[in-house]
Amino acid sequence: MNSVASLTRKRRVPSAEREVALLIEQIADAIRSRDVDAALRHYAPDVLAYDLLPPLQYKGAEALRQRLTAWLGSFTGAIAFEMRDLAIAAGNNVAFCHSLNSVTGTSQDGTMVDMWWRATMGFRRIGGIWLVTHAHSSEPFDMQTGNALTRLRP
Amino acid sequence: MNSVASLTRKRRVPSAEREVALLIEQIADAIRSRDVDAALRHYAPDVLAYDLLPPLQYKGAEALRQRLTAWLGSFTGAIAFEMRDLAIAAGNNVAFCHSLNSVTGTSQDGTMVDMWWRATMGFRRIGGIWLVTHAHSSEPFDMQTGNALTRLRP
Repeated sequence: MNSVASLTRKRRVPSAEREVALLIEQIADAIRSRDVDAALRHYAPDVLAYDLLPPLQYKGAEALRQRLTAWLGSFTGAIAFEMRDLAIAAGNNVAFCHSLNSVTGTSQDGTMVDMWWRATMGFRRIGGIWLVTHAHSSEPFDMQTGNALTRLRP
Repeated sequence: MNSVASLTRKRRVPSAEREVALLIEQIADAIRSRDVDAALRHYAPDVLAYDLLPPLQYKGAEALRQRLTAWLGSFTGAIAFEMRDLAIAAGNNVAFCHSLNSVTGTSQDGTMVDMWWRATMGFRRIGGIWLVTHAHSSEPFDMQTGNALTRLRP
């Protein structure tokens, strides 16, 4: 993930921010490998997620596992996953980040997928380990048509 | 905002969490009063917001002011604003929260508005003052129809 690498190279980064940046990079790598277990390792058991798709909220790592398995299983072959404009705010034990994320790939039914969305993650350091305790991914929608705007680009 | 009051009464709450809870309550009160200035007072000049409506991101307090002015100006008469399942993670200088928010009211064209959405906010303590530096509001969408699901209820 070039954005994280460049973020941490660019300036003297406090250690909490660097730790969170590495965690984000590990999650991004797990997504690129479509490795649900490797990704879930970094989420708290009681994570609360707001996803692109319903329901309103996914409560707990098991609910998120099912969603992540369905999402990553919907592709055939390699996918490209990118995080742009990543910004991290990290204190001693609490952190959050936001970014514009994209995925490019081919779905099982042959459709080309190429979309951007907004992503926020919240982190806590629990027992010395940073974990994702909150995730929020979304698209805005057109108020007139009610359509989610899945083709916007940054 | 009952949820904040009950959150802070329920148990011994660390001061950072209590400060952030009060800030959230002040923003909620400003929304109920449809007072854009009172709300914006709690946002950082360089706040980055992902809103229900496009564009993908609103950069800075002035962009957010225009959006908030349009939103609060779209109602006629009083509005009810509620935050449910509010959870706050607060460290010394960084915090975030998430909740399910709802607004009920009558829009200028006479339509009854009654909707719930997912809300995340990120905070930094800057010069001793907590400010919102990130906000993310959204609805999930139906993958088959592409419609934003604005009628879901918690």
